Amino acid sequence: MFSSDDQHFMLHAVQLAERGRFTTRPNPRVGCVIVKNGGILAEGWHYRAGEPHAEVQALKSLDQEATAGATVYVTLEPCSHHGKTGPCVQALIDAGVSRVIYGMRDPNPLVGGKGLTMLEAAGIVTDGPLLEAQTKALNVGFISRMQRQRPWVRCKLAASIDGGTAMANGESQWITGTAARSDVQRWRAQSCALVTGIGSIEQDNSRLTLRKDELPLDNVDDVIKLAPLRVVLDTRLRISPDAAIFAGEGKVLVFVGKEAPEANEKRLLKQWPDKVLVERVDTCKERLDLAAVLEILANHYQCNEILLEAGATLSGSFLRAGLLDEVIIYQAPILLGSCARPLFDLPLDTMSDKVSLQMTDQRAIGHDWRWVANVMTRSW
Amino acid sequence: MFSSDDQHFMLHAVQLAERGRFTTRPNPRVGCVIVKNGGILAEGWHYRAGEPHAEVQALKSLDQEATAGATVYVTLEPCSHHGKTGPCVQALIDAGVSRVIYGMRDPNPLVGGKGLTMLEAAGIVTDGPLLEAQTKALNVGFISRMQRQRPWVRCKLAASIDGGTAMANGESQWITGTAARSDVQRWRAQSCALVTGIGSIEQDNSRLTLRKDELPLDNVDDVIKLAPLRVVLDTRLRISPDAAIFAGEGKVLVFVGKEAPEANEKRLLKQWPDKVLVERVDTCKERLDLAAVLEILANHYQCNEILLEAGATLSGSFLRAGLLDEVIIYQAPILLGSCARPLFDLPLDTMSDKVSLQMTDQRAIGHDWRWVANVMTRSW
Repeated sequence: MFSSDDQHFMLHAVQLAERGRFTTRPNPRVGCVIVKNGGILAEGWHYRAGEPHAEVQALKSLDQEATAGATVYVTLEPCSHHGKTGPCVQALIDAGVSRVIYGMRDPNPLVGGKGLTMLEAAGIVTDGPLLEAQTKALNVGFISRMQRQRPWVRCKLAASIDGGTAMANGESQWITGTAARSDVQRWRAQSCALVTGIGSIEQDNSRLTLRKDELPLDNVDDVIKLAPLRVVLDTRLRISPDAAIFAGEGKVLVFVGKEAPEANEKRLLKQWPDKVLVERVDTCKERLDLAAVLEILANHYQCNEILLEAGATLSGSFLRAGLLDEVIIYQAPILLGSCARPLFDLPLDTMSDKVSLQMTDQRAIGHDWRWVANVMTRSW
Repeated sequence: MFSSDDQHFMLHAVQLAERGRFTTRPNPRVGCVIVKNGGILAEGWHYRAGEPHAEVQALKSLDQEATAGATVYVTLEPCSHHGKTGPCVQALIDAGVSRVIYGMRDPNPLVGGKGLTMLEAAGIVTDGPLLEAQTKALNVGFISRMQRQRPWVRCKLAASIDGGTAMANGESQWITGTAARSDVQRWRAQSCALVTGIGSIEQDNSRLTLRKDELPLDNVDDVIKLAPLRVVLDTRLRISPDAAIFAGEGKVLVFVGKEAPEANEKRLLKQWPDKVLVERVDTCKERLDLAAVLEILANHYQCNEILLEAGATLSGSFLRAGLLDEVIIYQAPILLGSCARPLFDLPLDTMSDKVSLQMTDQRAIGHDWRWVANVMTRSW
């Protein structure tokens, strides 16, 4: 049905979409290639919210004579609605293209398929999905937000081979090497939010910032400007206003329980009026309702991908709640022993309770080893 | 000093030596290539104790006219003593070779260098070591026995990514897949002894046998005949005479404390008169003196490489005693949770106490991941 040329051009569009990996949010990453007589006429990608979509970017340099009868390869179904920019569907119709091949349908159930219908109504042939696994992989977070009303949740952990993440006394700096810590910066930079718990704040006084010197990207200045929202889960709102996280650039969102002391909130907002946001959610047994947290992050803060950087307690809570999608584990060639803290607070009784992981990537990062895996859905 | 031809021929000799990996013990693995006018005249390798050494095997097919003036590449310094076979040095002198290039010197401090001296006294040029890292790697166990009077100790472990080796109730079958379990068979087959603890015997009723259908080797029948000694560490000699390990082929050596009940020993030896051996060693706090165990395995049982297949208690004891040389860890893409049993019973307090590993091999084995690493020496 699809030729090897079709696959070739769509793969190229996927590579173009990758150029927006660190900057398109909350929009999806999209790439587009315009082809005529077997050759590429123009290419485009979405770079940043508020700037042209991939299709418009690609069409920009061409007049109608050039685009008439062309085939368009685009990783995501063209949009049919007026957002910050005009609908791409209309631009494609105006350009007189004859065929649109899409990587995946729009995952938003309210608009999915509408763009294709409009194109077909205008006499344009549409065909797809093509390389759906690859085009979906560009936007796991956007798809999750559209279809599940929650972000794609990644959990980053640094551990020894024997599964220790910190000594019993909390000491954990540094388990992994500089290469692994630099690699973490890339995961941070592509996230809409970085999430940690009050325990980690109190133990490590973490800032959750991007560090320019550890991000070897051509567009590092743009990336730093779009630094992810930093989020602390703090049921009783006990975070100190002097915590290092407040000193870094950008806003900090603190999720607290509905019963958290008002006085603490006032004090915090008084010290950081333009920096701190507080969201109150339900609690159960002193724990925040994590599903509610994620729903707010998706619906109020348009979070596609979030990176959880927390200790065993909070990481375990997400896992046990079935809200963890992916794990990134850096394993260092060391043993921390049998008193070390575990990856996840996860009390299981029998082998049949075990959690299965679907490996997607394994590689050496400096002297450490990085596992990337999806958590297989299970009922708890 | 050495030409690329020299390296090429020595590498070939290393490959020949590999053919004895599963069968030469307690002898070292040795390969030999005889070269004249830039071409290989003959090759040989030691296959099995009692059969010709590599040099004699290589010379066998040649008359003196052929070998006169030849260069000999041999992975280990030729022996100068009469063992089960005549000394190789004399055979080389008789053959009239002009040059002997060796991979490593004889690691036995009592005879190391003597072979070379004898060759030189006969007017033969000797040169080496060449590719010492590769030639030493053939015989880590033999070298250890000669130089340290103890075997090279490998510990094999199967764990989850979060470092669990069994559930709290002891359940552990099966953490890893069939490919990993089959891979273990190769490590077993190259070992002189397989060592486990009474805890593993009681928990898993393990047999520690070689399984022909899981050993894809051309010479599997020979390998099975030379199956490693099976060893149980059992301070109080509480092993049941009905344990499955006694049903398998070959002898079983039980190390017990000096104070272990005589009655238990009598009962065991009465049921298994031709199969069971008992060795008594000192104990400290109910634990066997592991250094004494290893010394006996090296000096009385000529063990070069041993494979420890035990639980966290015994594995941890070897590690803490500084007697563990290498770890082979199979990690399965699963989480067993925070109540699972650890790899090593190893109580450490601070990051500075951590044990460092020197990775020598990492690869996928089926769905699991295998780490091979040397334990870095440290003072406890």
